[in-house]
Amino acid sequence: SDNDSKEHNHLISSDTLIINLDHGDPTVYESFWSKMGEKCTLVIKGNDLMSYMSDMSRLCWFLEPELEEAIKSLHRVVGNAVVEDRYVVVGTGSTQLYQAVLYALTAPGGGDPVKVVCAAPYYSQYQAETDLLCSGLFKWGGDASAYDKDGAYIEVVTSPNNPDGHIREAVVKSRRGEGKVLYDLAYYWPQYTPITRPADFDIMYFTFSKSTGHAGSRIGWALVKDEEIARKMTRFIELSSIGVSKDSQIRAAKIMGTICDNYQDFESGNSESFFEFAHQLMAKRWKSLREVVEGSEAFSLPKYPKEYCLFHGEYTEAYPAYAWLKSSEGIEDCEKYLREHCKIVGRSGRRFGADPSFVRVSMLSREEAFEQFLKRLLSIKGIKNQN
Amino acid sequence: SDNDSKEHNHLISSDTLIINLDHGDPTVYESFWSKMGEKCTLVIKGNDLMSYMSDMSRLCWFLEPELEEAIKSLHRVVGNAVVEDRYVVVGTGSTQLYQAVLYALTAPGGGDPVKVVCAAPYYSQYQAETDLLCSGLFKWGGDASAYDKDGAYIEVVTSPNNPDGHIREAVVKSRRGEGKVLYDLAYYWPQYTPITRPADFDIMYFTFSKSTGHAGSRIGWALVKDEEIARKMTRFIELSSIGVSKDSQIRAAKIMGTICDNYQDFESGNSESFFEFAHQLMAKRWKSLREVVEGSEAFSLPKYPKEYCLFHGEYTEAYPAYAWLKSSEGIEDCEKYLREHCKIVGRSGRRFGADPSFVRVSMLSREEAFEQFLKRLLSIKGIKNQN
Repeated sequence: SDNDSKEHNHLISSDTLIINLDHGDPTVYESFWSKMGEKCTLVIKGNDLMSYMSDMSRLCWFLEPELEEAIKSLHRVVGNAVVEDRYVVVGTGSTQLYQAVLYALTAPGGGDPVKVVCAAPYYSQYQAETDLLCSGLFKWGGDASAYDKDGAYIEVVTSPNNPDGHIREAVVKSRRGEGKVLYDLAYYWPQYTPITRPADFDIMYFTFSKSTGHAGSRIGWALVKDEEIARKMTRFIELSSIGVSKDSQIRAAKIMGTICDNYQDFESGNSESFFEFAHQLMAKRWKSLREVVEGSEAFSLPKYPKEYCLFHGEYTEAYPAYAWLKSSEGIEDCEKYLREHCKIVGRSGRRFGADPSFVRVSMLSREEAFEQFLKRLLSIKGIKNQN
Repeated sequence: SDNDSKEHNHLISSDTLIINLDHGDPTVYESFWSKMGEKCTLVIKGNDLMSYMSDMSRLCWFLEPELEEAIKSLHRVVGNAVVEDRYVVVGTGSTQLYQAVLYALTAPGGGDPVKVVCAAPYYSQYQAETDLLCSGLFKWGGDASAYDKDGAYIEVVTSPNNPDGHIREAVVKSRRGEGKVLYDLAYYWPQYTPITRPADFDIMYFTFSKSTGHAGSRIGWALVKDEEIARKMTRFIELSSIGVSKDSQIRAAKIMGTICDNYQDFESGNSESFFEFAHQLMAKRWKSLREVVEGSEAFSLPKYPKEYCLFHGEYTEAYPAYAWLKSSEGIEDCEKYLREHCKIVGRSGRRFGADPSFVRVSMLSREEAFEQFLKRLLSIKGIKNQN
């Protein structure tokens, strides 16, 4: 029958086809949102949200007021960022906000482009994003740990770090206060890492993609202390895209609102709370992965300290969005090895300014892909002979 | 009562408050979409559209296939662009596509930045958008009519033109084929201008904002002949914003689909067809505006030739999205005059590389604002004495 044949194809494909875990595509959370039903369903009428403008009296005039409220409520519920006395600037994902910050922290006519640095291993796209238009304002400067020039620079601190999941602080020692720091907190959510304090930096940003898993909506937001910086970021987004999709802003507000309602409603059980669900799911995946990796001679994984999480109210481990696998001595190119032996596509350590013995593998795939990943890792025997 | 007091405030404000017609905010079309009811209502479930990816087998991997189909259907129905053998690249509004094209048409290490030119009067934001990051790849070069340098350049042709509504062609004479041309066809729709032929350029783009009026969704699309250019544009959008809101893409597909269904369904009367509605509405506004302006000594308006419109099947005039008002001799600064005497905010001719005796005023406002605009113009008496 037709069903049998589909089933058959399915089995063939799941054993032999390439599994792409290169991107951090957060489809792992689909099952949760599917269960939430109508509470999360967004309805937009044909005549809704047609204007460019949201609220011209606000600094970020294309930010929907209900998204700003939802963002602030979510941070208050989670306790991962200070929202008081902050401007909220919305962007088309945190990617657009990254460039908006670089624009806001630099100025034309200031001589050489300001160097943008980040401690290795750093997010693989920073360099290409920074140098996209060969800007005269700023230029990628590589590993922050190796940076020892004089003059202005911008340091990007990604915490928890992408790719390796570690909590980070700025590493460049500013000699004359000429350094500026921006904090990419995309993964500072309680499913990935213990929330040890509300982040309280001058410039920090988050994304809908990694918090709730809605990557397709392309919504990011920055919390910015200084009015002039927030104003320049807004100007950048105006000139790059005349604002940010209002359909997605309203959707983000709705999804965030649902999460907050769950936590504020004492009547509801914990079973429907997003961050508990996501935390347990990530914990389960990491437990399974660590078992497989410990039984293998081919790979090792970073260790993360247990810390007291203010959100969960207990000591928790980190369960990062990526596995930062390191291959053992016999395997020089971990990405190549995984691709050739397991048909798993990860992202090479080289792309992150690190050694090719590292590979970054997404932990955020759909369940079937994750199970295949484990199964294929498990199937590697006698590594040293094979290589 | 509360209602009386609201009504009272409303009357005060409509006579004395500033009316902002600076932006081309297309809220004029809200009334149409409001009447369309549920056919245009978009429903998005909590677990829909969560992935970054739409279709990895396509060149533009973040383009939703149903949007591509809707775009092609819409152009076929309207007859304003050739869609065969074209790549469709979606952008966060046509603003992002403009920059994606500049990126795609230039390359690092090629010496001086390529000059980007456009015949004056040109869209007021091109210069700021081009020079936003002080790119080493391209740089604003001003009025194309005055451009006579050797070497590579990019000419932007906006047709119908923003601000003045005229149909345009490229004006720079390329000496050694070093010039590249991009066509901004945001206003090449049958409510604004006669559709005399399907546009058949190598690089052309359109926007949801000005076609159907859904500016808040930030959806634009380019039709691109050359694979390599489409690939580079896609790469630019990947590095700027990792794609384009899927919520808005699906909404655009739905709205466009509704328009196409109306035209393909012979049973339905013309009364519900978007472009007829929009054309009649623009015709009515232009008729009223021309009457007021002809009765005044202060201003004049451009004239547009009647041409045979393939879409409407008759000779039609242009009814541009903006009134490009020119003040008479006694008034040097048209924008200032309008602001001070009518409390109408337009955009000065200076911003478009033109004379300050011009001002651009949006024709796309809500009905009340448009009526106030006419009423206030009408109230100007004895211009020469007042100035």
